[in-house]
Amino acid sequence: MPETGPQQAAVDVPRGLAGVVVTETAIGDVRGREGFYHYREYSAIDLARSRGFEDVWHLMFHGTLPDAEQSAAFAARVAALRHLPDEVAGALPLIARASSAAGPLAGLRTALSLYGSATGLRPLYDTDPERRAEDALAACAVVPTILTALHRIGLGQEPLAPRDDLGHAANYLYTLTGREPAPDHARAIEQYLVATVDHGFNPSTFAARVIASTGADLAACLVGGVGAFSGPLHGGAPARALDTLDAIGTVDRIDPWIRERVLAGERIMGFGHAVYRTEDPRSRMLRGLAQGFGGPLVDFAVQVEQRVEAILAELKPGRELHTNVEFYAGVVMEQCGLPRAMFTPTFAVARVVGWSANILEQATDSKIIRPGARYVGPPPPQPVPAV
Amino acid sequence: MPETGPQQAAVDVPRGLAGVVVTETAIGDVRGREGFYHYREYSAIDLARSRGFEDVWHLMFHGTLPDAEQSAAFAARVAALRHLPDEVAGALPLIARASSAAGPLAGLRTALSLYGSATGLRPLYDTDPERRAEDALAACAVVPTILTALHRIGLGQEPLAPRDDLGHAANYLYTLTGREPAPDHARAIEQYLVATVDHGFNPSTFAARVIASTGADLAACLVGGVGAFSGPLHGGAPARALDTLDAIGTVDRIDPWIRERVLAGERIMGFGHAVYRTEDPRSRMLRGLAQGFGGPLVDFAVQVEQRVEAILAELKPGRELHTNVEFYAGVVMEQCGLPRAMFTPTFAVARVVGWSANILEQATDSKIIRPGARYVGPPPPQPVPAV
Repeated sequence: MPETGPQQAAVDVPRGLAGVVVTETAIGDVRGREGFYHYREYSAIDLARSRGFEDVWHLMFHGTLPDAEQSAAFAARVAALRHLPDEVAGALPLIARASSAAGPLAGLRTALSLYGSATGLRPLYDTDPERRAEDALAACAVVPTILTALHRIGLGQEPLAPRDDLGHAANYLYTLTGREPAPDHARAIEQYLVATVDHGFNPSTFAARVIASTGADLAACLVGGVGAFSGPLHGGAPARALDTLDAIGTVDRIDPWIRERVLAGERIMGFGHAVYRTEDPRSRMLRGLAQGFGGPLVDFAVQVEQRVEAILAELKPGRELHTNVEFYAGVVMEQCGLPRAMFTPTFAVARVVGWSANILEQATDSKIIRPGARYVGPPPPQPVPAV
Repeated sequence: MPETGPQQAAVDVPRGLAGVVVTETAIGDVRGREGFYHYREYSAIDLARSRGFEDVWHLMFHGTLPDAEQSAAFAARVAALRHLPDEVAGALPLIARASSAAGPLAGLRTALSLYGSATGLRPLYDTDPERRAEDALAACAVVPTILTALHRIGLGQEPLAPRDDLGHAANYLYTLTGREPAPDHARAIEQYLVATVDHGFNPSTFAARVIASTGADLAACLVGGVGAFSGPLHGGAPARALDTLDAIGTVDRIDPWIRERVLAGERIMGFGHAVYRTEDPRSRMLRGLAQGFGGPLVDFAVQVEQRVEAILAELKPGRELHTNVEFYAGVVMEQCGLPRAMFTPTFAVARVVGWSANILEQATDSKIIRPGARYVGPPPPQPVPAV
């Protein structure tokens, strides 16, 4: 029997549930006014600077950073889990063909759903916590395998088997391109992945937790997360920021191009964030990485950033619009040789770990998330007219 | 650029967002204290008694009940949309095989995701309202085709092409069993379908709306709805209520069986609802339908209902636990010859229309649903230890 406390009176809250505290969490938070975010008790940026992806994954799942021995064991475990079950691998050509227009995230959505069925995932509600964590570990591990296989199949290439001797970021680049990546490229992508594992109660995390609160299986929750993440308003699509740089083209065109769009009320992709009122700390880190590689693209990006900030400060005073994670993420991925179609999917390679940590936390709460709405249509009951 | 109003202060609300008003809606509501729910301005039970499924579908999508001419035109339009694209039909054997253990809802989740890609659904955000409604009409129309095909393939049978000369409910039964259903069976299932199209802001509807608020495509939203719906805490699984009747077995075992479970703190499937404090109006209607068919199963069910209510009133005074929609839905579906594995999927045949109406309404609101959480872990930033 569902919980049957007294019926709740209507509780009015800000639009879009802004600021509404859905739950307590020990996973992390974003402090928008300070320009700071963290995973557990560590600054996410500090983690990106000093730790590998698998270590942070361990932190998200188990609540602690691994020591050297645990780190090696966890990385080996993850590496062994990257291989797809035959049933799912066999379906990828069909999924790639069907999602050739819709793109890799739609393909990932279908493949993860199938993966959940094929591996016999049971409802979270009927699964003990250790098994849930193992299931989630395996689901996160196959995401890069699925994405790179779909990408290669789309190009008419054979998918590549994951390489257990490579770290998660390097293996991702290898299965994408077929070449072992340069160490500085692998490390830059790894830092990007660490920095995008989680980011507070964003809508994809929230969607995954709402589904988890019904006790549904892990794949149902992850597929909801992927679905919300694919929405244009969610953010996290570095390709479109790079498209903006391409569209502007040259330094002399920056000012007229930006002014025209801002005055028309259009969004400038790569600028502005729902929570940060400061520079996005991810943006600052990624700019540093991009400048480390150097080259005309990053020089141009820095000039665009400076001009856009100046123009926005002039035309929209007090709005505090700065580059968000998308802007320099696109630059770094381009510098590291990732194809543009894979920019957003790369974000998903990281974020699936954050969704999973949130799903595992939600699964320890027995209370379903079931809000209400206010009916504002014509008053019922009206007599039903005969046909 | 995302909307950038002042950062919200934390807003504390009841657990599970109970009673929290997420949005205004003109689709319908549940009045738990009155035992009443409605679609638009009509009692849902009145609609189930006097209108066909397609008429109510028209009401949910367009806000008005159709007149005779509109009704025939809409039904013909829906019938023509029930056929699956070849790409999706061709994938069903593979999906059926992979989801043989996970069940039809997991199969539906994968197939709808693939359907969304194969039919080139664009983000809601980039789709005009008329096109969105057409896309949703087509997606709802194929759900029974997908479910019955997966079921038949699982039994080693060929899927059946939908019959355009049959109404939605009768065609569903036909494609499931291969026999044109008796008119009273088709009508009883149709009434069940009408009664379960929508039910306030339940978690699957809410999950679909959260995803829709990011501007993601329709399939992403529906797949989130199916995922949440598959959760054991969501409700809507009539088979488990029938399993309870089977487990009790005989009249003399009712009292000890129920007392033992209630005293052990277990749920009694088919009893209790998150919102109703009265009899569930769907239960009352379905009991009437079941009693119209008559027979030992419904007689036994009525006896179980009476004893459970008496025992719960004695052991949990003041809790107001009554049969919910699951209890007699299982009885009616059994009487109409549906296989038990298809009881919950039948619910989805109806509810996809409610999800879609909610997604279409959400798509007219540009505000993303992005709540918050309260971080309660150890305070950051702690220095990151070296490996």
